[in-house]
Amino acid sequence: MKMLINRPEAVVPELLQGLVALHPRLRLLADHPVIVRAGAEAIRDRQVALISGGGSGHEPAHAGYVGPGMLSAAVAGDVFTSPTPDTVLAAIRAVAGPPGAVLIVKNYTGDRLNFGLAAELARAEGIAVEVVVVADDVALPASEHTAGPRGLAGTVLVHKIAGAAAEAGAPLAQVAAEARATAAAVGTMGVALSACTVPAAGKPGFILGENEVELGLGIHGEPGVRRAPLESADTLADRLLGAILDRFPARPARVALLVNGLGGTTAMELAIVARHALAHLSGLGITVERAFAGTFL
Amino acid sequence: MKMLINRPEAVVPELLQGLVALHPRLRLLADHPVIVRAGAEAIRDRQVALISGGGSGHEPAHAGYVGPGMLSAAVAGDVFTSPTPDTVLAAIRAVAGPPGAVLIVKNYTGDRLNFGLAAELARAEGIAVEVVVVADDVALPASEHTAGPRGLAGTVLVHKIAGAAAEAGAPLAQVAAEARATAAAVGTMGVALSACTVPAAGKPGFILGENEVELGLGIHGEPGVRRAPLESADTLADRLLGAILDRFPARPARVALLVNGLGGTTAMELAIVARHALAHLSGLGITVERAFAGTFL
Repeated sequence: MKMLINRPEAVVPELLQGLVALHPRLRLLADHPVIVRAGAEAIRDRQVALISGGGSGHEPAHAGYVGPGMLSAAVAGDVFTSPTPDTVLAAIRAVAGPPGAVLIVKNYTGDRLNFGLAAELARAEGIAVEVVVVADDVALPASEHTAGPRGLAGTVLVHKIAGAAAEAGAPLAQVAAEARATAAAVGTMGVALSACTVPAAGKPGFILGENEVELGLGIHGEPGVRRAPLESADTLADRLLGAILDRFPARPARVALLVNGLGGTTAMELAIVARHALAHLSGLGITVERAFAGTFL
Repeated sequence: MKMLINRPEAVVPELLQGLVALHPRLRLLADHPVIVRAGAEAIRDRQVALISGGGSGHEPAHAGYVGPGMLSAAVAGDVFTSPTPDTVLAAIRAVAGPPGAVLIVKNYTGDRLNFGLAAELARAEGIAVEVVVVADDVALPASEHTAGPRGLAGTVLVHKIAGAAAEAGAPLAQVAAEARATAAAVGTMGVALSACTVPAAGKPGFILGENEVELGLGIHGEPGVRRAPLESADTLADRLLGAILDRFPARPARVALLVNGLGGTTAMELAIVARHALAHLSGLGITVERAFAGTFL
């Protein structure tokens, strides 16, 4: 599997250097793979800091969401590897002031452990920290997966809503409550036509047949719930939406729709899927307040 | 090659329907595959209309650039197929008023012919129309390619600059002059690690070996100038930038850099390439006023 990289071990530092070179309003901490919002120091005294992150390889997540109204800092681990607690702590120290910080963590064992430990260390330093876990995957019933549902692309909507609350000056408890309410209201399910390739591995994580898809996969190329035949975009959209809506006992009257590509799906395909998803929701009498299609995570 | 589509012949209409469903500020003409800026009627009397387009399969181009400060309308052909003259004419009629219209056309025989014919028809109806051709590919010397250099992703920068002039209320001649000056100042070169697949064909346009790249390819999967071994991202960036800068007899002091993915390149790889491209330009004493990395065309 060919990639436009230099060396696998240089991918993360060069990626972060590239992002800050491209975006003058981002800054890379000197000693840690942490991207912070330029001017974070100027607002840390009056605004709750919002921090997310995780393994790299999910671009534009998470550094792409650092900025006004979203994250104060993004912590980058190696590709598909949780960042270390000291890295997360460095991010907290860099952007959190007296209003405190909310950490938005996707539900993976490593992320929960490392962000949780960093939160404890920060609290010991007198920084108020809340941890919000996002577990939006509807594909795996909680009972079958000891760690509970995985965190997927719905996390971006949690950044957005919690970020708006923080930017508006809401206090720590309220920002955390908005983030938790959003996390509880988001459902996501994935489908893959082919597997991703981790640079250091150099080959795809699994192989699908020419007419096969993987349903309910994670964002790290973890196997999904089952393999199924390739069906039309409309049928696949129906399957995913059906599973997502089944998660919620009461059908929502108003929703936001996010159609996320995992990095290799064209804008053409995402628009075709979004078209049918919007029609499906409309057919159920559900109002779509906002719709997004793109590569978000 | 698997795709998230319904039927190949439905790709373009469904894609366009999806885009307008996602973006309330876009509107699809009833009888033509043309996307226009919502409210275009309200500004056609005071602002030069800017129209671009071409074959589909280049998303987010061209409909993604319809909006304030960029295009008034985007005309969509079938995948990698020039739109018909009557479609282009329908776009002109929909958005052009007394200030006239500028058509931004990538340098392909079909596009030049069909946009040119539509311009003639519109002029016969009393609409002032200027045609600006973008031929930014530096890979093929003009002498080796009878139609001249191809139009590539630099076209997006022409949309941007001409769009700003139109939005500012500049008259037709000035908007066209800004577009031509931008087109003359843009150089682009492509590299591919694999070929694209046209939905109706169902398989890639060419096959590259596991350690091979195609240098100087077009945006429709046309073969490039030569095949070469896969090298590091930095070395490939150096090769492309060297060829681009060689096109300009006088080295520019200030530039904009656009690192474009053709649809299947991850944000991670684009940031790694952009990092080195920015360093390369800085090393030559060239100031980069604006830099972009993403999937633009």
